[in-house]
Amino acid sequence: MSTALPQACSAAELAADLGLQVQGDGETMIHGVATLSGASPEQLSFLANAGYRKQLASSRAGAIVLDKADAALAVNARCVLISTNPYADFARIAARFGRDERIESGIHPTAVVADSASVSPGAHLGAYVVVGPRCTVASGAVLGPGSILGEDCHVGADTRLVARVTLVKRVRLGERVLLHPGVVIGADGFGLAPTRDGWIKVPQMGGVLVSDDCEIGANTTIDCGAIEDTILEEDVRLDNQIQVAHNVRIGAHTAIAGCTAIAGSTRIGRHCLIAGAVGISGHLEIADRVRINAMTLVSHSIHEPGEYAGAAPMQDARSWRKNAARLRRLDALARRMLAVSKEDTDD
Amino acid sequence: MSTALPQACSAAELAADLGLQVQGDGETMIHGVATLSGASPEQLSFLANAGYRKQLASSRAGAIVLDKADAALAVNARCVLISTNPYADFARIAARFGRDERIESGIHPTAVVADSASVSPGAHLGAYVVVGPRCTVASGAVLGPGSILGEDCHVGADTRLVARVTLVKRVRLGERVLLHPGVVIGADGFGLAPTRDGWIKVPQMGGVLVSDDCEIGANTTIDCGAIEDTILEEDVRLDNQIQVAHNVRIGAHTAIAGCTAIAGSTRIGRHCLIAGAVGISGHLEIADRVRINAMTLVSHSIHEPGEYAGAAPMQDARSWRKNAARLRRLDALARRMLAVSKEDTDD
Amino acid sequence: MSTALPQACSAAELAADLGLQVQGDGETMIHGVATLSGASPEQLSFLANAGYRKQLASSRAGAIVLDKADAALAVNARCVLISTNPYADFARIAARFGRDERIESGIHPTAVVADSASVSPGAHLGAYVVVGPRCTVASGAVLGPGSILGEDCHVGADTRLVARVTLVKRVRLGERVLLHPGVVIGADGFGLAPTRDGWIKVPQMGGVLVSDDCEIGANTTIDCGAIEDTILEEDVRLDNQIQVAHNVRIGAHTAIAGCTAIAGSTRIGRHCLIAGAVGISGHLEIADRVRINAMTLVSHSIHEPGEYAGAAPMQDARSWRKNAARLRRLDALARRMLAVSKEDTDD
Repeated sequence: MSTALPQACSAAELAADLGLQVQGDGETMIHGVATLSGASPEQLSFLANAGYRKQLASSRAGAIVLDKADAALAVNARCVLISTNPYADFARIAARFGRDERIESGIHPTAVVADSASVSPGAHLGAYVVVGPRCTVASGAVLGPGSILGEDCHVGADTRLVARVTLVKRVRLGERVLLHPGVVIGADGFGLAPTRDGWIKVPQMGGVLVSDDCEIGANTTIDCGAIEDTILEEDVRLDNQIQVAHNVRIGAHTAIAGCTAIAGSTRIGRHCLIAGAVGISGHLEIADRVRINAMTLVSHSIHEPGEYAGAAPMQDARSWRKNAARLRRLDALARRMLAVSKEDTDD
Repeated sequence: MSTALPQACSAAELAADLGLQVQGDGETMIHGVATLSGASPEQLSFLANAGYRKQLASSRAGAIVLDKADAALAVNARCVLISTNPYADFARIAARFGRDERIESGIHPTAVVADSASVSPGAHLGAYVVVGPRCTVASGAVLGPGSILGEDCHVGADTRLVARVTLVKRVRLGERVLLHPGVVIGADGFGLAPTRDGWIKVPQMGGVLVSDDCEIGANTTIDCGAIEDTILEEDVRLDNQIQVAHNVRIGAHTAIAGCTAIAGSTRIGRHCLIAGAVGISGHLEIADRVRINAMTLVSHSIHEPGEYAGAAPMQDARSWRKNAARLRRLDALARRMLAVSKEDTDD
Repeated sequence: MSTALPQACSAAELAADLGLQVQGDGETMIHGVATLSGASPEQLSFLANAGYRKQLASSRAGAIVLDKADAALAVNARCVLISTNPYADFARIAARFGRDERIESGIHPTAVVADSASVSPGAHLGAYVVVGPRCTVASGAVLGPGSILGEDCHVGADTRLVARVTLVKRVRLGERVLLHPGVVIGADGFGLAPTRDGWIKVPQMGGVLVSDDCEIGANTTIDCGAIEDTILEEDVRLDNQIQVAHNVRIGAHTAIAGCTAIAGSTRIGRHCLIAGAVGISGHLEIADRVRINAMTLVSHSIHEPGEYAGAAPMQDARSWRKNAARLRRLDALARRMLAVSKEDTDD
């Protein structure tokens, strides 16, 4: 592993690279990025969330990427870069100043590779990596320390398993996929048939397809399909500790926040935004461009794009206990109320 | 590891093995299993979920396992096998066609085994397995790559740790237990005593007993008991990312879906079905044959078998916000309504 | 690893060490600790949870630590030790009887340590530990088997990674921190900027600071900050499978139960008690000494100490379905009711 330090450049150069408009002193030299409240005059910051707008006037940042409408508020900055998508342009600039972490290809002497596996000479295998039978690892792929590939798995070009990722069986990863530590893909789905004597395990014979440009957070689990595959289309982004059950399909460009659980055979559309700790029942269909708010239980299919919710409101516990006690008898209360209302109308 | 390909056989042979009734051409040769929509004429499929009944007529499957009542709907199949439990019988047939993955006994040269541990010559230890002091591993047990046994753990005959499973201390696994990657059993329970100066850790001195035929999903955690043991009775089936706190006891044949959390010292009965993302408070008792629906908070004991629920309904977010705002004042609303109702009655 | 068995001592000695008052026979010899229902006459037990008070009279324990008010109920015990904090004093006594597990310093021959890393000769590195570039490990630290340190991480004195813990990058652990298996700290936060062509990853350039005396449960994940650090102040206690997103700050002495998820940039106060499976939205502020009940969604900031709740009540599923159906139309119901009420008032 070799590390090159990023180099300083002028605000005008950054703006030219990304097609941004410069207001103020474009010669301002930028050495790195920071938050509005933490930036020094040698750093660039950004405003993308209106909640931080009040920090704009007092920020010491040398340059700030922001929306045209906010430019006049950055009274302290030597320079502003006007963008139609400040967060994305900040991300592009930050990537330039990130540590250039170049991972060299090669197989660590402790890696254990099955005879029937095929590892590109352009791939990197870290310490204590295990690659099982009939696996293939493409050029530019990085298997970080402690990662384990079971059987019949494929890791595409420039895909990275940061560390301690497990691909169990029949997992195909596309190109430029990023998997964080603790991820488990391709473990058996939860398939059980009840009998008089207890459970019979239903063999889980499908695989998992993770398409190009997906990212999967720490300790997230994606089960293999029962017969057909579990599928993530391209550019799906999963946060930490998400559970994806067997035969789920997640559409391209959908992003899901931490701790959400998706039960078996559900199909989620493209460009959906699903918040954290959501539960999605099995065998449902969710349309494209659906937004689901945190801690909602999705118990039926969603056919129209839009925003959906269903988490109970938080209150001081004393008030909530009273309200919850009424909720337990809401139907009776409603019946009584409707009877009164009807009598009233009948008058 | 050696792999034998499964062999084709006739539908009549499969039926004879399982005591199923054949309708149609029993000589239909079956090479594998598939879904109703994906099957070819050389494959067998099944119908167990009424939601897929509409696929029966168009399925190209050569043979279909189904309930007697559905037999007439399978107009395309050369043959149907009539079962009183189609899902279980499909599971049995699928197991026959699964890849015969035979794991040979032996200790990988990279496994590290403590002097005081005892590993049967009939066990398999994969690459980078670590077996700590006073552990025992029985014949037929498989410790997949990267698995770690801490101290005083026992792995029963024919039990399998697929890969990267951690047994921390005082964990006893019965026979034919199946643990998926990322499982952690026997870590300290969450025992803390408050003092004026902060928290004091309460030593967690119990163990964990996982009885015969249990299955535990990826990244599920089961803590050791504080003093006595945490216990799973036989044939308990846990999905992925479940949390089982110290001194929980789960009755035989109970199945729990992903992301459910069970707090300390709760006892769950036998033959329960607990859905995903359920929360169960501590120190409760749950009777046998209880079903709990997804995302319910179980905050008090359940003494009667039956189905229980408590997740708020999902709606479009605009409607939900209005309803939730009312819910925050439901007690006041109810009081007002009851006052009106009373006046009305008083008239 | 060497193990010394704990020694017996008299109840009076234990009381003297902790400043407890003895009633009964202080010469009672104690060989270990147990639950009220499981203790033998050679064991000490305790009563701290009123739910177990009914077990006091029948307990066979030789000595019992309890509150003064309960002393008269322990009619069977040869001796009681009266404490103002029975649970904390029991914890202190239990620690004395716990197995004295002394882990010797030294580096296992299979540990892989980068040239630029610095490991104290007083530290212990177990089998298959990997320590990456520019990491430092202080004296008394224990890195259990399979633990991985990526880049630029620091492990403080007497801190223990039980096994298979992953520190990804820029993670600083204080002294006496305890991390259970499967913990992942310092993986990338979930930072994405939307563009017309899909998501752009926002570089996650901050680190994680875990202060002295924190404990973190199995499979819990704590992401690195986007720009500044994610921070746990001293004596924070996290249970299993908790998700802490980027730039969260958790105040000293706060304890959080299993499966709770905290979204990005939220600040939680000191001395908070957060129950299990709670969801906390991003960019919020939670005051000191706040208690949040299980499965509550915290969707707005909390400025006052106190107890907060918001999980819907559990019922038999039939009743709940009726109530939930009404809840879906609660606003309309309330409008109608208020109209009637108004008419009524108008009379």
